[in-house]
This record gives sequence, C-alpha cells and structure tokens, in this order.
Amino acid sequence: MFQSQLFSKTRREDPKGEVSQNAKLLIRAGFIHKEMAGVYSYLPLGLRVLNKINDIIRKEMDALGAVELELTALQNPLLYEKTDRWSGDKVDIWFKTELQTGGELGLGFTHEEAITELLKNHVSSYKDLPRAIYQIQTKFRNETRAKSGILRGREFLMKDLYSFHVSEEDLDNFYDKVKGAYERIFERIGLGDSTYITFASGGVFSKYSHEFQTLSEAGEDLIYLSEGKKLAVNKEVLNDETLSELGLSREELSEKKSIEVGNIFKLGTRFSQPLGLYFKDEKGGSWPVVMGCYGLGPARIMGVIAEIKSDNKGLVWPRAVAPFDIHLVILGKEVELSGDREALTETAKTALEIYEELTASGKEVLCDDRDLSAGEKLADADLLGIPFRLVISDSAIKKGKFELVDRATGEIEYLSEAELLNKVR
Amino acid sequence: MFQSQLFSKTRREDPKGEVSQNAKLLIRAGFIHKEMAGVYSYLPLGLRVLNKINDIIRKEMDALGAVELELTALQNPLLYEKTDRWSGDKVDIWFKTELQTGGELGLGFTHEEAITELLKNHVSSYKDLPRAIYQIQTKFRNETRAKSGILRGREFLMKDLYSFHVSEEDLDNFYDKVKGAYERIFERIGLGDSTYITFASGGVFSKYSHEFQTLSEAGEDLIYLSEGKKLAVNKEVLNDETLSELGLSREELSEKKSIEVGNIFKLGTRFSQPLGLYFKDEKGGSWPVVMGCYGLGPARIMGVIAEIKSDNKGLVWPRAVAPFDIHLVILGKEVELSGDREALTETAKTALEIYEELTASGKEVLCDDRDLSAGEKLADADLLGIPFRLVISDSAIKKGKFELVDRATGEIEYLSEAELLNKVR
Repeated sequence: MFQSQLFSKTRREDPKGEVSQNAKLLIRAGFIHKEMAGVYSYLPLGLRVLNKINDIIRKEMDALGAVELELTALQNPLLYEKTDRWSGDKVDIWFKTELQTGGELGLGFTHEEAITELLKNHVSSYKDLPRAIYQIQTKFRNETRAKSGILRGREFLMKDLYSFHVSEEDLDNFYDKVKGAYERIFERIGLGDSTYITFASGGVFSKYSHEFQTLSEAGEDLIYLSEGKKLAVNKEVLNDETLSELGLSREELSEKKSIEVGNIFKLGTRFSQPLGLYFKDEKGGSWPVVMGCYGLGPARIMGVIAEIKSDNKGLVWPRAVAPFDIHLVILGKEVELSGDREALTETAKTALEIYEELTASGKEVLCDDRDLSAGEKLADADLLGIPFRLVISDSAIKKGKFELVDRATGEIEYLSEAELLNKVR
Repeated sequence: MFQSQLFSKTRREDPKGEVSQNAKLLIRAGFIHKEMAGVYSYLPLGLRVLNKINDIIRKEMDALGAVELELTALQNPLLYEKTDRWSGDKVDIWFKTELQTGGELGLGFTHEEAITELLKNHVSSYKDLPRAIYQIQTKFRNETRAKSGILRGREFLMKDLYSFHVSEEDLDNFYDKVKGAYERIFERIGLGDSTYITFASGGVFSKYSHEFQTLSEAGEDLIYLSEGKKLAVNKEVLNDETLSELGLSREELSEKKSIEVGNIFKLGTRFSQPLGLYFKDEKGGSWPVVMGCYGLGPARIMGVIAEIKSDNKGLVWPRAVAPFDIHLVILGKEVELSGDREALTETAKTALEIYEELTASGKEVLCDDRDLSAGEKLADADLLGIPFRLVISDSAIKKGKFELVDRATGEIEYLSEAELLNKVR
C-alpha cells in the first residue's frame, strides 16, 4: 500500500486527555481514534494489527475443532433474569436500552446466556456433544473508569469460546487443550516471553480458573510469579494450600504488575441448569450440559503490545502482528509513483520495482511516497514501528546498496537489490 | 469440514413466529438464529456466506482505492446535535443508552457524523484529498416493524463507504466509479440479472441519488422498471421531468416489487459544514469538504438470495457466496472417518480420499459424515443448498461412478473418481 493513500496522519504531541501509554502512542501513530473515554475506532493501520491477531486466534480455535459463529450485541433480559445477571445489583456494567415498541434490552457484556439458549435448538442427546463454539465479536461494558486506553474499553472486541460436554472429565480434557492453544497464541503473537499462566479462584464448579497475565508496569493486576517455574498465582489464591498444591514456596515468588490478556474458566452447569440446556444419556437419563468458557481480548492484546514493546521513538510491532512487514521509505523530492512509468525519476522507478518485487514475493509493504522531508519520514517510520525499514534514496541507488533497519534491534544492513530480495524471500 | 463438527441442526418445520421466507429457510437450514424480532445471530454456515459476500465487497472497495477502518457502535450525542439528527423528532430509529458516569449515548444507525469528525484530524489541505474510507460494521436501528427476517434488522451488518473531495466535479467522478463497483459486486454475488440501478430523490445537493433494487415478491419497495434499458425510477421521482431526462416513457415501465440492496448518495457539504470539516485550497481559501456516501447491506443481500434463489426444497446459493463449494454426502451406516485409516470401511476410505483431494485442490467441501438415513441426508443437502452434491455410497464405489448433482439446475452426472477430480479442478 502507498502511504499517500492512507489518510491517517501522525502527531508529534500526545493527544489531550489520554493518560495511558498505549492510547497516546496508538493515537499519535494513527492506529486508533478516540470517540470518547473508553471508546476507540480502529483506523486502517490499527485494523490491520487487530485482524492479524484475530487470524492467529482463529487458526488455534479451528485447530481445537471449534466452529465460529457471531452472536448479537442486543440481548434479551429474560435470559439474564433466569441466571440472575440482569439486575444492576448483580451486574454493574450493563449498557441497557429500550425498544420503541416497548421493553428493555441489554448490550452483551458476555454471551454465556445467549450461547446456552441457542444450543437448546441443537443439543438434545449425548451424541450431540462435545461441542466447541467461538466468536470474535464486540462487547459492551459500562465501566466507571476508562483511563487505560484500549486495555479496558467500554466497547471492545473479544474472542469468546464456549465448550459443551457430557461430563466434567470431558471438560477437563478440553480445558487443558485450550490452555495449550492459548500458550501457542501468545507465543505466536510475540508475547510468549512475558505472559504467564496464573492460577485464580475457580468459583463453584472448579477449584481454580486460569488467567493469562502479561507483565507490564501499566498493569492493574498483581500476580505472584515464579519465573523459574513459569507459573503464577493471583492474590485470591495466594495461600498455603494453593502453594503446596502447586509445589511453590513463597520465597521463589515475586510480586509483579500485569495485564490479564485471557482467562479460561470451568462453568460446570452454572448456565445450563437455569436455562435448561439438558442432554439425554445412553440410558435416557437427563442431565445438564457441562460447560467451559474461554476469553481472550484481541484489542487488549494490541494495547499490551503498544505498552511493552514500544520505545521512546514509538511502536515496535512483533513481526506476526505488524500492520506491514516492510516500510519502504523513499527519500527525495520527486516521489510521484503513478502515471507513465518511463517518466519517473530513477529513484522512483527503482522504488516501485522493489515495491512490486517484495509484494509479489508475498510481503506486505507500506511505501512512503509522501512529499515530506527525510527527517519527518524517518521519524514517522520509527513511530509506526513496522519491523523493517528500507530506505531508497538517490545516494543509495548510486552506491547500489540499500539500508535495511531492524526496528526492534536497530541493526542496520546495507544490501544490494539482489541481496535484499533474496533476504526477505 | 465434517458435518458432524457443525453443531447446527436442520428442522423440517417452519420456526414459529416467522412470516418471512428468508428467515424461515435460513433458520430451518441452521444458517441463522433468532434472538428476538429483528435480531439474528449468524451460525457457522450463515457466517461463511456473510464472509464471502464481505470479501467480494472488500475487493471492489479496495480496487476503488478505498481504505478500511472500523468505527464504533457507541456514538456521542454532541456530533448529532450539530447536524440536527439527535432528537427523536428528527431520527426515530435511535437506540439510546446511558453511561453509568452520566450522559446519554446513541448506538450508531449510520456513521456520517463520526467519520466526518474523525477526518478533521487528518484532512486540512487540498493535498489531503480526495479520500475514500469504508467499513463493514454493525448498525443498530430501533425499527417498529421487524417482520422481514434479515431483510430489515434491528442489528445488522452494513458496508458504508464515505468519500471526501475538493469539488463536486471530483465527487461526481468518484460517484460514477462507485456505481460501476456496485454493479460488479451484484454481478459477482450472483444478483446481477435481477438488480437494477434505480433513480431516487437526491436531497439538497444533487438532483438524484441511486438505489440498487433487486426484484423480489418479498420486497417492500415499488420501482418502475424499463427492462430493455436496465433502468428504473422509484415513486419519488416518477414524473415527466425525470422520465424525459432519462429518455424513458411511461409505456415501457412496469411496476415491480423490489428490495433495496444498496444506495449511493451525494452528501455535498451537509455534514462537513455543521461539523467543521474544512480544507485549504492552493490560495489559502477555506472550504467545506464535499462528501459522498455509499451503503450496502451484506446481511440484507444474504436475505435477498434466500428469498429469490430458493425453491420448495430449500436454499440455492450462487457459487460465489455459497458456504461450501461441494457437499460430499456419504451414504451407508459406517461413516466414522476418524481413527485408524486402515480400519475404515472401503466407502469411508474412498470418501476421505476424495474429500482430501478436493480440499487440496482448493475446494471448500462439507462432508456429511453423520449417522443418519440416506433420505434425511439428501433432504438436508437440498435444504442447505450447496452448489454441488456428490454422493458416495457402497453401490457407487462398486460401479466406480459417483453421482454429482447441480443444486440449481438439478442436472445429474455420473463420474469416475478421476473424471470428478478433473472436473472440479
């Protein structure tokens, strides 16, 4: 893509009214736009990052045998009355609205009720189980505090997977597989090193649930981490019983600030029972379906990366989720790339040739063809944080060597066109 | 994909409380689920159709040079007060909600205000124009009537493209390009034959706007169509002046019921002026940006296809938007496809082999491996409406010929495995 086509402009100054590092950087770089506190639109660069995160998540969900659907934001209060989650005393983050024809509705903050009700049309026998169903969909939460940028939004994208089983044993098996899938997701996204599985309280049906916590100074959570064992516990379960069960001692734990990027939870029959999702076993007996739920926040993950992978020059995207692979920056005044190719300057012609070769070899390239100074372009490239920056200039063409800079390490290589194409292929 | 993995079950009877053909069929076939009147979730098969429609739309939008973003559902009333679209007297389809911290919000029924406000950060000079920006995003409309299934939802997916120009001439040029893109979209989706560009009233800034109307007995609109000229007018502009301008006579027009599947509209400065989106020209003069907007309903398109492409046995998807290319139906009792391949029956082994070859050749195959009678499976295949049905049975294997049925024409061919693979490659 040509940068001249991308409408988003960068800013040198921090946006007013933002305190979080992720929102400051992502707004300055033109990845997101603040509609109001806790409500952010995704500009083309931001949407590309989000889609890459979603693609990684989808692949792992599909590998679990899960199928994708899309539930609605508008929610029927009747379902939530049955599970006792409609009243404001029980759930204090509802956005509620009203039909013109009468009757209150809610905007889904989660979808256990909706998916359980839906499955009643499709599950009646043990033969219909197990099932694993997920969506990547927009949630609404009426948060009173919304100062963490896209780490805690009032409207945000979430991946929620639900699983349905005949027994707790079957749930346990699947739950462990999801644990593995989550570890692979964070690994592939580039957060594997700093994300830890964390034991948390499990509610009625299970002793523990598990959070995936990424270490960050911007975190609102505190975890107690054994780096050696790559294992953490949260405050709720920091007690002698848990520690002895997990083979941990207080001495090896250190308190760390962190951000919860995912959580997995055994629901048991908490929702199937009140909503009436039952199955018949081989002998004709009727039982409530045993459920699990597994959340992951793509937008929050993007925010975490902006927090912990950035430096004082700007964003630094891990390769797997970067909006583009290579930032091809053309220096010099004449950068008009359209029109008659023969009429282009040699620099423009070479840039276009390299752009096309890289694109043809499957690389996603952002080509800075804007009419700006070299300083502005290079500063923008640092701010945007695309993994590799390739500079095309008159002098580079004369020398026959192009500068390729690794945004994360700052490492510089000078390569001929052939070497370059060979390297990135 | 194996059908055993797909949780959605078909139904023989029409769902209660649905009057529209599209909702009846799509619910019976397990493509959608009704959450409440006008609010439908998309089950895996339905989501696949929707994604294919979206992909076709995206390609044409990208070819126009438009870039994709994603705006939010939660909307700030301040913007709509400036354009006089907040009060219920002016806009009667708002869903409104409230922040816990105080203050009303709206759920976006359209996004002219939001995109105009956003562009103020990114457009200041004529050099920043033109721009074309689109999204495929969920809209909310508090409709009093919601009996048309997914043709008129209270929550529904919409593609909205907005364009920004220095002059009406530049808008006119782009507008004509969008008209062409829309024609290609309907052509590619499989609605080209029955969709007509229709002249409608243009509002303050332009004499006409244009609707894209698909002929259907389920339609709520009436258009006056010249089939010979492939041109229609709607009731608003059915007058002598329009007819003479378009070179139409009343005699050649016939009244037809139709569904509006898209519309394009010249906004002029209707939004840029009150919201303050101005640009500086070469001489430093300040002017409001000239805008166009271009809507298209992917969910509604899916509904239209269900209405006009179905028959008494079920859905009939055009190839480009079908959830799968081929429905491979295995008849016979033993259809367990997992586990040790050597232990499979010959029918199962052959089916798996064909499934894998088709998939490897890039075809999307739904493989019916369920433990159901031949009658049930074939009826389900008709109901689901995948373009080709391929039957694998003991007797077919003995004969060495497999039955391939074209869902749309009913045409049957008997092919050897080699012929089959050759045909679909």
